[in-house]
Amino acid sequence: MKKLKILFFVLFLIIFSQSIFAQKKPVDLIISGGTIVTMDSGKRLILNGAVAVKADKIVAVGASSEIARQFSSKQIINADGKVIIPGLINAHTHIPMTLFRGIADDLDLQEWLTKYIFPAEAKNVSEDFVRVGTQLGLAEMIRGGTTTYCDMYYFEDAVADETFKAGVRGVLGETMIDFPVPDNKTWDEAMAYAEKFVNKWKNNSLIVPALAPHAPYTVSAEHLQAVKRLSDKTNAPIVIHVAETQKEVDDSLESKKLRPVEYLANIGFLNNRMIAAHVVFANDAELDLLKKFGVGIAHNPQSNMKLASGVAPVPQMLQMNLPVGLGTDGAASNNDLNMWEEMDTAAKLHKVFAKDPRVITAEQAFEMATIRGARALHLDNLIGSIETGKRADIVIVDFDSLHQTPYFNVYSSLVYATKASDVRDVVINGKVIMRNRRLLTLNESIIKKSANAYRTKIITSLMN
Amino acid sequence: MKKLKILFFVLFLIIFSQSIFAQKKPVDLIISGGTIVTMDSGKRLILNGAVAVKADKIVAVGASSEIARQFSSKQIINADGKVIIPGLINAHTHIPMTLFRGIADDLDLQEWLTKYIFPAEAKNVSEDFVRVGTQLGLAEMIRGGTTTYCDMYYFEDAVADETFKAGVRGVLGETMIDFPVPDNKTWDEAMAYAEKFVNKWKNNSLIVPALAPHAPYTVSAEHLQAVKRLSDKTNAPIVIHVAETQKEVDDSLESKKLRPVEYLANIGFLNNRMIAAHVVFANDAELDLLKKFGVGIAHNPQSNMKLASGVAPVPQMLQMNLPVGLGTDGAASNNDLNMWEEMDTAAKLHKVFAKDPRVITAEQAFEMATIRGARALHLDNLIGSIETGKRADIVIVDFDSLHQTPYFNVYSSLVYATKASDVRDVVINGKVIMRNRRLLTLNESIIKKSANAYRTKIITSLMN
Repeated sequence: MKKLKILFFVLFLIIFSQSIFAQKKPVDLIISGGTIVTMDSGKRLILNGAVAVKADKIVAVGASSEIARQFSSKQIINADGKVIIPGLINAHTHIPMTLFRGIADDLDLQEWLTKYIFPAEAKNVSEDFVRVGTQLGLAEMIRGGTTTYCDMYYFEDAVADETFKAGVRGVLGETMIDFPVPDNKTWDEAMAYAEKFVNKWKNNSLIVPALAPHAPYTVSAEHLQAVKRLSDKTNAPIVIHVAETQKEVDDSLESKKLRPVEYLANIGFLNNRMIAAHVVFANDAELDLLKKFGVGIAHNPQSNMKLASGVAPVPQMLQMNLPVGLGTDGAASNNDLNMWEEMDTAAKLHKVFAKDPRVITAEQAFEMATIRGARALHLDNLIGSIETGKRADIVIVDFDSLHQTPYFNVYSSLVYATKASDVRDVVINGKVIMRNRRLLTLNESIIKKSANAYRTKIITSLMN
Repeated sequence: MKKLKILFFVLFLIIFSQSIFAQKKPVDLIISGGTIVTMDSGKRLILNGAVAVKADKIVAVGASSEIARQFSSKQIINADGKVIIPGLINAHTHIPMTLFRGIADDLDLQEWLTKYIFPAEAKNVSEDFVRVGTQLGLAEMIRGGTTTYCDMYYFEDAVADETFKAGVRGVLGETMIDFPVPDNKTWDEAMAYAEKFVNKWKNNSLIVPALAPHAPYTVSAEHLQAVKRLSDKTNAPIVIHVAETQKEVDDSLESKKLRPVEYLANIGFLNNRMIAAHVVFANDAELDLLKKFGVGIAHNPQSNMKLASGVAPVPQMLQMNLPVGLGTDGAASNNDLNMWEEMDTAAKLHKVFAKDPRVITAEQAFEMATIRGARALHLDNLIGSIETGKRADIVIVDFDSLHQTPYFNVYSSLVYATKASDVRDVVINGKVIMRNRRLLTLNESIIKKSANAYRTKIITSLMN
């Protein structure tokens, strides 16, 4: 009997001491209970996992029980039965063009651009237009679990302002081009705007200001070199369209005796802060150049298909371990900003084009939308995976919709079966931006009303 | 003053007589207020339109005000601001395979079939499996606005039973093949099953019973001819896979000295009740044969891409005005039953493959999912468009989601921007099957529970 008393006393001491030493660290948010698809270097999947977030950062990732033992938070999101993924990264957009969604489709590229897109832009694009289009695109992207996007358009300062206010992460570049555009009428104006824009946003927690010369065929060598110097001086990334069409390659060969990527290397333009959109037509030597200079690539399968541009050599890019992400391109050529459909299409397109279903797996497609996309934007030190120390850009996905039932492999289900409508919660930079499908930083009905007002204006403008 | 009195009296008489003669005809359902995409021969769009339905049929289509003047109904669905379309037609499925959704992906076709699909089927497919898988597929399809589907699988009598109970329209064929399958162990058993199945369902209001010999390479000429005779005798359609892969063509040329379609014509198998799935590899002469015999075609772009089968000559089929519809194929090779993604993919795939964005328009893709799909199933006298006299298979689509905003062209928005999650109401054969996104004939939570029980069984079966 005495022995039993001593045993109880010892047990009491052990439990008591544990409760003293196991003081839980307070954090700002715990997401707990789902399957975590970390996309870390080991591609760890954590069943019944949890993520602890303090301020803007992930401070711990592990088993739910372990996180619960170590951390406490007033804000806990229960993710039981759900899947927790890194926020999706849309590597190429022209976000205000959501307002041109479907104004003209199924046309020859040149006709589409010269008869519809350029006139519509000339007659409608203003700072207010850009703000409304940006809000519309942000709301659509948040609903679909996109937490970072890489954009190039006009009035990009307004894009940055709206993006920051909505709490979304963006690599945002002011488009620069050798002819007058809605915001800047001369090259010098554009350069001044761009430098001011970069300086204004360079230390922002969400916005990475970038320079966005439109393309090698719309900006002179001299001007591209000036952009490169500004990038070297400010560390700003450069976003540019490269080798989107066969015509671009043919024209480049004719006028410059070099293919687009060769030409950009030749004029000393390539650097490891560059993000090249499309790269549909790049031969082995050009892919080697992109690898050598550490250029990021944004692959836009749906846009490339819809505009009949061609099929980028993505399986080869993956074999070379190039930093290639996925983008939707603008809503005038897609016609949505849906990364789930982009992943699904990317996987299927390259299978049929290569006549081999093994050239790209669901896991690789998902990787392109997360950690490899982060590498494409040169932000893989901050985002793209759920790992301690990274920014807390996290998405919780319902996994019990009819179209996801049953599920056998998480990557397969994410890429081939999950829809944007399955996204439930979105956290960016530690802040909850969408909760239970409700947007917390944007007013959906006001956005729709403003967008529809522009619809009427755009229709009228195209009639004149 | 007297004149005024007379005037009032005359006015009174006019109004009174109108209310006597304008006795409204009672109907069972009026859908009123949206934009009707009729898909009739004139491709009429009716703004602020209405559809009156009595029993299983559409009795009137017109302006809302006109329908309201002529008809009355206790059941009125307000479709203000929405788009009213003919129910979508999924021209090729293996519906119970929803339970195999994602069991194996990204594999070589032969490996996928022989190491995963065939063993999984041998170990798991039972009548109960088929019932659960069918319910799961039906629920997913209704949610996405599909009102008719064309299926081939085993225990097709159970598929028909579940489909009829759920109130969905189906052309359903029992799969017949020259080796033992889960339900029939010999060819004679299969023929007996098929004949009994056809006789049982042939006068059903929703089910068109069909014969489904698997493919020209898995069923002998003699057996195919027997199926053809049974089709001639019973008027049952024939569903068959044709020319899905290059290997099939090569093998056919080697063993039969004829390409697949040529071979089927040669053995006298083709008729105008036939529905040929895939037809990825058909040359000009074979397309002419299909046209001559009035064979329907089911094009499955996502399945053909995912399995790397190839790209069917769809632009040519459209130029020849062939009856080609769109199908998802089974959920093991897609991995969903989503006709919206199938339309979007069809349009984009053929643009990039033909290197011409004009080869297929949004309107043509939508047509393939509606009236042209009805032609493929030889049911265009009954379904595929919203026209007086046709069966009331009608879908109401929300048109104010963020990803649909703004909208400029209804076909473009339907094909390139609308998602399954935008489907609000579904009417099949005059009955409301889904209302405000709630399924009225199926219990979603029970279906998911049963499907997940099979998930566990399937995983265990593949481990042994």
